[in-house]
Amino acid sequence: MLVGSVCVSKSSSWGGEEQWAQRARLAVQRLPVQLTVKLSLAESVPYLESPLSPLEFHREWVCPNRPCIIRNAFDHWPALKKWTLPYLREVMGSKAVSVAVTPNGYADAVYQDRFVMPEERHIPFSSFLDIVEKKVTLPGVFYVQKQCSNLIEEFPELLGDVEPDIPWMSETLGKKPDAVNFWLGESGAVTSLHKDHYENLYCVISGEKHFLLHPPSDRPFIPYEFYLPATYHISENGSFQVVDKEAVDKVPWIPVDPLNPDLKRYPEYAQAKPLHCIVKAGEMLYLPSLWFHHVQQSHGCIAVNYWYDMEYDLKYSYYQLLDSLSEAVKLV
Amino acid sequence: MLVGSVCVSKSSSWGGEEQWAQRARLAVQRLPVQLTVKLSLAESVPYLESPLSPLEFHREWVCPNRPCIIRNAFDHWPALKKWTLPYLREVMGSKAVSVAVTPNGYADAVYQDRFVMPEERHIPFSSFLDIVEKKVTLPGVFYVQKQCSNLIEEFPELLGDVEPDIPWMSETLGKKPDAVNFWLGESGAVTSLHKDHYENLYCVISGEKHFLLHPPSDRPFIPYEFYLPATYHISENGSFQVVDKEAVDKVPWIPVDPLNPDLKRYPEYAQAKPLHCIVKAGEMLYLPSLWFHHVQQSHGCIAVNYWYDMEYDLKYSYYQLLDSLSEAVKLV
Repeated sequence: MLVGSVCVSKSSSWGGEEQWAQRARLAVQRLPVQLTVKLSLAESVPYLESPLSPLEFHREWVCPNRPCIIRNAFDHWPALKKWTLPYLREVMGSKAVSVAVTPNGYADAVYQDRFVMPEERHIPFSSFLDIVEKKVTLPGVFYVQKQCSNLIEEFPELLGDVEPDIPWMSETLGKKPDAVNFWLGESGAVTSLHKDHYENLYCVISGEKHFLLHPPSDRPFIPYEFYLPATYHISENGSFQVVDKEAVDKVPWIPVDPLNPDLKRYPEYAQAKPLHCIVKAGEMLYLPSLWFHHVQQSHGCIAVNYWYDMEYDLKYSYYQLLDSLSEAVKLV
Repeated sequence: MLVGSVCVSKSSSWGGEEQWAQRARLAVQRLPVQLTVKLSLAESVPYLESPLSPLEFHREWVCPNRPCIIRNAFDHWPALKKWTLPYLREVMGSKAVSVAVTPNGYADAVYQDRFVMPEERHIPFSSFLDIVEKKVTLPGVFYVQKQCSNLIEEFPELLGDVEPDIPWMSETLGKKPDAVNFWLGESGAVTSLHKDHYENLYCVISGEKHFLLHPPSDRPFIPYEFYLPATYHISENGSFQVVDKEAVDKVPWIPVDPLNPDLKRYPEYAQAKPLHCIVKAGEMLYLPSLWFHHVQQSHGCIAVNYWYDMEYDLKYSYYQLLDSLSEAVKLV
């Protein structure tokens, strides 16, 4: 399979007429055409030893859409010292919370020919902790991952141990977060590869999160397919069924599993270049909008993240264009 | 001529599978394909009544690559009160300066099948002013427009009446300007449509400048051709000759004249959407990097501009991609 590529270099020199014609021919005549844009990306996610000024953070990280891990960004949060599982059990008691349950740890992921969402249960938080702490064994993998600002909606008792926003980020972006989410799950819980339209600050309080990241410019190498949506549902005998949702459109999702990519089926994925990083307790990952991410965690990892709506600006237009082109070349 | 277009809307909704396939087919199968991205552009260049904080200016204008006219940005410059032609004559005297001379006012523009640069003369500034003030009549149109930081290199006597940089812009961008240029010319002098890799702050001290602007996303509708470079040269009988430069590559330039576009030859230009603005004395235009601009002026208009090197970031990659695609579709 021939691949045409357009590489962008920092030089603004035009090159001669012949080079330009050749480049244009390359872009069009070699089929299937895959247009790649190589951004100036780091080999690994860089660290900042502390937060920056809003101007510097906007200019060096947000505007160029580049990830980083920020240390010493929330040393003052009581959560860092207080949030153990026993403490959370004490504060939350048997209050009912939303918990995602799947047979295999894959909530919101492609399974065979469906996009399958987890069974959502409302159970006492103490019961959920019994499962995480393996005091009780039940079929399936359990994860508090509802998002939708669940820290504020379901765990307001914990809000005083963290902050309702990240002040320097709110100043940087000129807005408050759309959502503040609480995450706690088993090591078997995996978040499949996807992207969000949020600027994301992801704070690990206890344990560690493993992120596999693809820049948005990897879009030509990341397959999307359409799937009928379904939900896991545990039957009386304890086995999980996949139950189709009624009368809904197919949804697009990424079928490739970065941990075990099927390169026979999705050969283009071999050209994608993932970045790996581990976010440890006390560290904050700036995960820029539109970056693809796949997430794993240590058992019982506790985290809080802040979602700020992205600006639908140049980078959004750019990635929409890349997206259209990626789909268009599949038809050639 | 059929035109395929991909419009970007603010919604992040995917649309159904059929819509996506249709959009992809549209992008590829209708030939010639012109991919357009409609950014959220204003109908006219907005005004700011004063400079903003560096964070706000970066976030709202630089990062989204949007132009604006800023008032009250240099009220404190002595130049605003002092710079009349008699004052400049008094300060500069008969010091030799670089002046561009053309038969028609078009320096650095396509003329027939050449890219023609002006004759560059070094004449006493007082002699140049005699021409501008019409005390003396000579063939051609005269313009001090050398750029290359000519305010510092050739007019250092004037530096004390302005500033060596724009402090809030230097803080916004985290750098000093690459060049500070002085401009003074006749009303017949026209700067043809082109773009620069600079963030440009263009300050009018006296008179007015007329800018015609195209956003970088108009690139699919703006033709580029390659031309042998040449220079005007006045012969002994006072007529201008076009003299080819020896042994140089062809250069790309935009052949269309926005004031009188040849739509038979360049029909795609009809789809480009120019913005017009007039920058008056005391006003500063923020002309973002990569924006196409065409400039006219009142007779004897005096201006100073600051060129800051652009960041070769996402927007640069985006426009390189648009550029390659625009050229590629010409071959289909």
